[in-house]
Amino acid sequence: MARVVVSVMPKPEILDPQGKAVHGALPRLGFTGITDVRQGKRFELEVEGELTEQRLAEIHDLAERLLSNPVIEDYTVTVEPGVVA
Amino acid sequence: MARVVVSVMPKPEILDPQGKAVHGALPRLGFTGITDVRQGKRFELEVEGELTEQRLAEIHDLAERLLSNPVIEDYTVTVEPGVVA
Repeated sequence: MARVVVSVMPKPEILDPQGKAVHGALPRLGFTGITDVRQGKRFELEVEGELTEQRLAEIHDLAERLLSNPVIEDYTVTVEPGVVA
Repeated sequence: MARVVVSVMPKPEILDPQGKAVHGALPRLGFTGITDVRQGKRFELEVEGELTEQRLAEIHDLAERLLSNPVIEDYTVTVEPGVVA
């Protein structure tokens, strides 16, 4: 059993209205010194059995086809340390 | 300049319909061996100046008050390695 995290973020050149909204709210709440906020998605996948190279390749495929929109988003796949058992 | 990542996930005991929807779509797309999916949010904050203990405490406060709903969500704050300059 392993936990794999897929992070999906808007590409740098793509406008991110959610992040902008959060950024705009900061001064009103008294937070200063944060120059930019971007908001994306985080998926935690619980993977059965051993995390082989083939399994990871499948998860990359899944991240690209189901979890992200490659036109406007970038994704990264990371294996959560300590959850592999 | 440092990049701080705030991850916000639904608490384990809270139903996560977005994650369930993704999980339900997997077999239709031919993906097997994934026993659970949970979906949350990822915020990337660009922080000006040095990342002091006080600054990190402020970001924890921000994560709790603005970025998450502590009743139904947990958050974690991590400093992105290599982006500190």
